[in-house]
Amino acid sequence: MDSATIIAMVSIFTAGITIAIGVIGPSLGEGKAVAVALTSLAQQPDASATITRTLFVGLAMIESTAIYCFVVSMILIFANPFWNYFVTQAAG
Amino acid sequence: MDSATIIAMVSIFTAGITIAIGVIGPSLGEGKAVAVALTSLAQQPDASATITRTLFVGLAMIESTAIYCFVVSMILIFANPFWNYFVTQAAG
Amino acid sequence: MDSATIIAMVSIFTAGITIAIGVIGPSLGEGKAVAVALTSLAQQPDASATITRTLFVGLAMIESTAIYCFVVSMILIFANPFWNYFVTQAAG
Amino acid sequence: MDSATIIAMVSIFTAGITIAIGVIGPSLGEGKAVAVALTSLAQQPDASATITRTLFVGLAMIESTAIYCFVVSMILIFANPFWNYFVTQAAG
Amino acid sequence: MDSATIIAMVSIFTAGITIAIGVIGPSLGEGKAVAVALTSLAQQPDASATITRTLFVGLAMIESTAIYCFVVSMILIFANPFWNYFVTQAAG
Amino acid sequence: MDSATIIAMVSIFTAGITIAIGVIGPSLGEGKAVAVALTSLAQQPDASATITRTLFVGLAMIESTAIYCFVVSMILIFANPFWNYFVTQAAG
Amino acid sequence: MDSATIIAMVSIFTAGITIAIGVIGPSLGEGKAVAVALTSLAQQPDASATITRTLFVGLAMIESTAIYCFVVSMILIFANPFWNYFVTQAAG
Amino acid sequence: MDSATIIAMVSIFTAGITIAIGVIGPSLGEGKAVAVALTSLAQQPDASATITRTLFVGLAMIESTAIYCFVVSMILIFANPFWNYFVTQAAG
Amino acid sequence: MDSATIIAMVSIFTAGITIAIGVIGPSLGEGKAVAVALTSLAQQPDASATITRTLFVGLAMIESTAIYCFVVSMILIFANPFWNYFVTQAAG
Amino acid sequence: MDSATIIAMVSIFTAGITIAIGVIGPSLGEGKAVAVALTSLAQQPDASATITRTLFVGLAMIESTAIYCFVVSMILIFANPFWNYFVTQAAG
Amino acid sequence: MDSATIIAMVSIFTAGITIAIGVIGPSLGEGKAVAVALTSLAQQPDASATITRTLFVGLAMIESTAIYCFVVSMILIFANPFWNYFVTQAAG
Amino acid sequence: MDSATIIAMVSIFTAGITIAIGVIGPSLGEGKAVAVALTSLAQQPDASATITRTLFVGLAMIESTAIYCFVVSMILIFANPFWNYFVTQAAG
Amino acid sequence: MDSATIIAMVSIFTAGITIAIGVIGPSLGEGKAVAVALTSLAQQPDASATITRTLFVGLAMIESTAIYCFVVSMILIFANPFWNYFVTQAAG
Amino acid sequence: MDSATIIAMVSIFTAGITIAIGVIGPSLGEGKAVAVALTSLAQQPDASATITRTLFVGLAMIESTAIYCFVVSMILIFANPFWNYFVTQAAG
Repeated sequence: MDSATIIAMVSIFTAGITIAIGVIGPSLGEGKAVAVALTSLAQQPDASATITRTLFVGLAMIESTAIYCFVVSMILIFANPFWNYFVTQAAG
Repeated sequence: MDSATIIAMVSIFTAGITIAIGVIGPSLGEGKAVAVALTSLAQQPDASATITRTLFVGLAMIESTAIYCFVVSMILIFANPFWNYFVTQAAG
Repeated sequence: MDSATIIAMVSIFTAGITIAIGVIGPSLGEGKAVAVALTSLAQQPDASATITRTLFVGLAMIESTAIYCFVVSMILIFANPFWNYFVTQAAG
Repeated sequence: MDSATIIAMVSIFTAGITIAIGVIGPSLGEGKAVAVALTSLAQQPDASATITRTLFVGLAMIESTAIYCFVVSMILIFANPFWNYFVTQAAG
Repeated sequence: MDSATIIAMVSIFTAGITIAIGVIGPSLGEGKAVAVALTSLAQQPDASATITRTLFVGLAMIESTAIYCFVVSMILIFANPFWNYFVTQAAG
Repeated sequence: MDSATIIAMVSIFTAGITIAIGVIGPSLGEGKAVAVALTSLAQQPDASATITRTLFVGLAMIESTAIYCFVVSMILIFANPFWNYFVTQAAG
Repeated sequence: MDSATIIAMVSIFTAGITIAIGVIGPSLGEGKAVAVALTSLAQQPDASATITRTLFVGLAMIESTAIYCFVVSMILIFANPFWNYFVTQAAG
Repeated sequence: MDSATIIAMVSIFTAGITIAIGVIGPSLGEGKAVAVALTSLAQQPDASATITRTLFVGLAMIESTAIYCFVVSMILIFANPFWNYFVTQAAG
Repeated sequence: MDSATIIAMVSIFTAGITIAIGVIGPSLGEGKAVAVALTSLAQQPDASATITRTLFVGLAMIESTAIYCFVVSMILIFANPFWNYFVTQAAG
Repeated sequence: MDSATIIAMVSIFTAGITIAIGVIGPSLGEGKAVAVALTSLAQQPDASATITRTLFVGLAMIESTAIYCFVVSMILIFANPFWNYFVTQAAG
Repeated sequence: MDSATIIAMVSIFTAGITIAIGVIGPSLGEGKAVAVALTSLAQQPDASATITRTLFVGLAMIESTAIYCFVVSMILIFANPFWNYFVTQAAG
Repeated sequence: MDSATIIAMVSIFTAGITIAIGVIGPSLGEGKAVAVALTSLAQQPDASATITRTLFVGLAMIESTAIYCFVVSMILIFANPFWNYFVTQAAG
Repeated sequence: MDSATIIAMVSIFTAGITIAIGVIGPSLGEGKAVAVALTSLAQQPDASATITRTLFVGLAMIESTAIYCFVVSMILIFANPFWNYFVTQAAG
Repeated sequence: MDSATIIAMVSIFTAGITIAIGVIGPSLGEGKAVAVALTSLAQQPDASATITRTLFVGLAMIESTAIYCFVVSMILIFANPFWNYFVTQAAG
């Protein structure tokens, strides 16, 4: 196996695993947050404005951790500096 | 094993594992959110508009994390830049 | 082992594992959603229309994550682009 | 080991593992759904028609995820395209 | 190791593991369903007809997932198409 | 290692593991069912006939999953078709 | 390593593991059943006859799953058909 | 490594692991049973005779599963038929 | 494999795993914090200022642990001192 | 590695692992039993004699399972029949 | 692989794993602390000064454990004494 | 590797692992016992003499299981009969 | 690999893993302690002096276990006696 | 690898792992004990003397199990009899 093959192999595997493991936490966290938001709305419909706003801020912060994983996954597939180095070297 | 075989092998395995592990969190999170929504609807039928709207926004955000995994899985099967590189090289 | 054998071996194994792991989350999530729906129907029979509709929308979204896995599994068995490539190459 | 042996070996192992892991989620999910249905029937015998109907729809959807695994398992044993390819090749 | 030995070895191992792992979920699910049925019977003896009928339908569906595993296990031991192929080949 | 040794080795190991893993679920499920039966009997001594009958039906179904594992384990030790094939072949 | 050594080695290891893993479920299940029996006796001393009888039937069924493992373990040590075959062959 | 060494090595390891894993379940089960017995005694001191008797029967049955493991462990160390066979053979 | 390939391979894999594992804790922690914030807002709408402020401080501290992982992951991809050393050495 | 070294190595490792794993269950079980004993004493100081006596009997039975592990561990270190055999053989 | 490559490889992998595993505990612990702080604030708005102060002290101590991991991770990347030793040696 | 090195290596590793795994159970068990003791003291200050005495007896028994592990660990480091044998042999 | 490389490699890996695993327990334990402290302060503001003092003593003891890990980690990086021995030997 | 290198390598790894795993139990146990102590103080401020004294005795006993691990860890680094033996031998 030459260097480019190894780098490609590891990049593909890591990109998949990163997003797969990385969404477990955020999706469970968001599920919990949404669930409690619905309970709160049913108990206190008058506070729906505050609850909705706080929920969206919270979801945004939790989603941000999933985005980190997606960003790393996309970088590894489409903007991988190590891959570029070895491809350039192989072509040069 | 030549490079194309290795890349194909890793891509197939990663594509499957990514979507398989990646749906565990979202499906459990959505299950919890839907379950609480049903409880809330039974307790406070009058707030059904707000509850339904918040539920759908929440489901959309949770589903988005499953979509990330599906997108990565599809990219690895049908638009894999590493695979294209090696196939082009083998053909060239 | 030649390339076609390796690709076939990995495709078979991944297809099975993908659907096997991929249904754990959705089936548990749906079980929870159905269970709570039944509790809600028993508590508030008057809201059965709203509850049933919300339940079906929720089940559809949860089932969709299982469908993703089934689709990937079927693609790997019956429409695998990597397999086609190597079979064509072996035949050509 | 020739190609047919490897494909047969992997197909057998995957077929077994797929159905074995794949029924864990559905059976637990159905157990939960049935359990809550019984509680609901005991609390609200008047709503038994609605509860039973919703239960059966839910069980059908949960069972469908187990069916996906059984289908993949059967395909791998009795209608495996990779196996057919190598057997044809060995016979040809 | 010749092909028949490998196929026999994998078939034995998979047959055992399939049924061993495959009964974990169904037995726990049935245990839960039976347990709740007993609680419901104690709370609402008048609804025993409905409860018993629903319990048996539920147990049948849960048991069906264990049956899938038993069927696959038996097929692998007594009606294994891959084994037949290699035995025929060795004898031919 | 000749074929008979391998088959014997795998059969012994699988027979033990099958029954060992296979009784975890049934024994826990039966424990739960018996436990709830005792609670129900203490709460509603008048319904003891119905409770006992339902308990025994339930235990029978749960025990059946353990029996599946015991049957497979015994088949692998005393009526193993693969072993018979290789012993016949070695003797023939 | 000759065949007899391998068979002996696997038999010893499997016999130990079978009974070790096999008693986890039954002992926890019996512990739960006994615990609930004691609670029920304290709440309803008048039903002690029914409770004790049901408890013993339940313990017998749970213990039976541990007995299956013990039987397999003893068969592997003292009445192992595979061992007998190879010892006879070595002596013959 | 000659046969006797292998058998001794596997016997030692299995004897230790068998009793180590085998006491986890019984000790937790007995802990639960004793704990509930104490609660019941505090709630219903008048039923102490029945409770104590049922507790001892239960502990005896749970302890029996630990005894199975201890017996297998002792057999493997001090009355191992496989070891005797190979030692006799080495001495003969 | 030369040194640069090894370093690149390890950096890619570690960068992905670091952010994937590293967001599990923070996302679950934030989910819990947001969920309780919503409950508190529904119970005590008057204290929304204090609650919101404390929530944001808490989310910031929890998010900081996710940021640590993201920073390490980015350093490994884009500012890796070990990679720079070996690339310089290879170029020099 | 000669036989004595292997036996010594396995004996040391097994002796440590046996007692390390073997005390997990008993210590947790005793912790639970003691904890409930203290609760019971606080609720019903008058029954302290019965509670204390039952607690000590229970602790003795749970401790006995830890003793089994300690005995096996000591036998493996100081009275190991396999070790004696090989040392005698090496000296003879 | 020469020494510097090995040291670099291990340092990169350990730096990532250290911070990834090391933030799981602190983030969950902080999530719990913040969550309870919000509940307390909603129940007892008058004690907000004491609660906030105690919360910040507690968060600081929990965060300190995450900082330990971050410090070790940074030392391994930017101030690694082992790496310096081998680089100096390679250059000298 | 000569025999003494192997024995030393295994002894060091086992001594550490034994005490590390061996304190998990006792420390959690003692934590639970102390926690309940404090609750009981707060509820029933008058019974502090009985509670304290029972607590100390219980802690002593739980601690004894940790002591077993410590004793085995110390024996392996400072009074290891296998090590003495090989050192004597090497010196003799 | 010479001795110094091996020692450096193991020291780096162990230092990272030690602090990473070692903070899981303390951070969760401190999180629980702080959380309960906040609940107690909200319920009983008058006892804030006693509560705060006991909390700080408890946090100090829990933090001490994290410090043990940090100390071992630092010793392995900056004051490793084994490393000093081999470096001295290599230089001497 | 010569003997001294192996012993050093194993000692470093074991010392780190011992303290890392060994503090999980004590820190969680102490966290639970402190948490309950705070609850008890808030409920029964009058019994603070008894509670504090019992807490400290309990913390000392739990901490003692962490100390065992720290002691073994320090012995392995700074007073390792096996290391001394091999260093003396290498120097002699």
